[in-house]
Amino acid sequence: MKPKALLFDVFGTVVNWRLGITRDLTTHFQNHPCNHAPEVIADAWRAQYQSSMEPIRSGRRGYVDLDTLHAENLELVAKMFHLELGTPEEKKWLIEAWHRLPCWPDSVPGIRALQRQFICASQSNGHIALAVNLARYNQFAWDVILGAEIVRTYKPAPAAYTRACEALGLRPAQCMMVAAHNSDLAAAREQGMQTAFIRRPTEHGPSQTIDLEPTDDWELTASSIVDLNCAIGNLD
Amino acid sequence: MKPKALLFDVFGTVVNWRLGITRDLTTHFQNHPCNHAPEVIADAWRAQYQSSMEPIRSGRRGYVDLDTLHAENLELVAKMFHLELGTPEEKKWLIEAWHRLPCWPDSVPGIRALQRQFICASQSNGHIALAVNLARYNQFAWDVILGAEIVRTYKPAPAAYTRACEALGLRPAQCMMVAAHNSDLAAAREQGMQTAFIRRPTEHGPSQTIDLEPTDDWELTASSIVDLNCAIGNLD
Repeated sequence: MKPKALLFDVFGTVVNWRLGITRDLTTHFQNHPCNHAPEVIADAWRAQYQSSMEPIRSGRRGYVDLDTLHAENLELVAKMFHLELGTPEEKKWLIEAWHRLPCWPDSVPGIRALQRQFICASQSNGHIALAVNLARYNQFAWDVILGAEIVRTYKPAPAAYTRACEALGLRPAQCMMVAAHNSDLAAAREQGMQTAFIRRPTEHGPSQTIDLEPTDDWELTASSIVDLNCAIGNLD
Repeated sequence: MKPKALLFDVFGTVVNWRLGITRDLTTHFQNHPCNHAPEVIADAWRAQYQSSMEPIRSGRRGYVDLDTLHAENLELVAKMFHLELGTPEEKKWLIEAWHRLPCWPDSVPGIRALQRQFICASQSNGHIALAVNLARYNQFAWDVILGAEIVRTYKPAPAAYTRACEALGLRPAQCMMVAAHNSDLAAAREQGMQTAFIRRPTEHGPSQTIDLEPTDDWELTASSIVDLNCAIGNLD
């Protein structure tokens, strides 16, 4: 059955976060030299991501947005690697690097093509301001921005999927989660959503070891969002 | 100062609700004849709108979405005018007429032009599903859908404006409310937003008496959204 809506994971699936963060760290290091490669710092910053959301998923901490978690995680990484964060403005600019991430080359043409047939929604752990800034930075518009701030929790908490479908007035079976991460798709399928895996074999750099291939029989697997637009035509 | 984001009222400002509701009532009356003109029923249905939101604005009733209020209001109008609502499916189809409203002819080209420079957001009393369906019906996409379901109350409650700006990470002064209704703009200005009035002299039909002209010195006044795109170029 063809879905009515596609819900997209964003970091890694639609945007190349490692390229964008590395680029802005490189600029920062011109004024605040660092002994480590920007890729090392980008990976270390991202590595704090999942554990920083855990207290919110489990209910031990109230909802705070991703700018707040990125700021806290940057402080941790700065201590670990002896980084200078500079003035409050410079630190803020670095945190907002997550609002200026470039799309993978296929993302914008792929989403634009899919929008002719399907509601295309951002279903990210980013908050509304981050999601709208990312889309505008890449010169496209989602049909609707869902995600953490709407559902008040972080994926892969079950409510992150069920409440997003509800907000569209659709049943989970009418919605397809699109992600480059098997764990995201497993959690979406658990709630009754359809699933599509996008291969992003360099999301974590050239020596990536995880999520190189689908680990389950997802409804669709594709090597880009443009390919997903072709593959989805074969459904039903 | 040029705003960063434009927040649009939708019913009346962007879409011609009276035309869409009249069209679908006309279809319904083919199977369930009615002694009244469809325009009379459309106006009566819409006339229940403000009073039905009042218990939610005042906190006496928890948040329910506009489909729920439209259903309750349709029942009231059916009693007043002795309408037959038909089967549950027929009634649902009528309620969903509010998801199938045509834009005024200038709305889509105007919003597309404004999106080159500004975040363009839906800031309607409609819920998320209604807003996304209305945009897709008219073949465009907002940068972001804000509105009642995000802020959990109805305009002109102050929080409906302040929380929408917060969701964009912007101060009210960086946001401009765009509406065909002076009362909406007055409430937005009260919270520190900029304001733009769009003339829609036939929103309520050919003998409209309210909101024909701006009643205050709004930052901008225009006769269409295309004109707004020209007028906003003169700001700064």
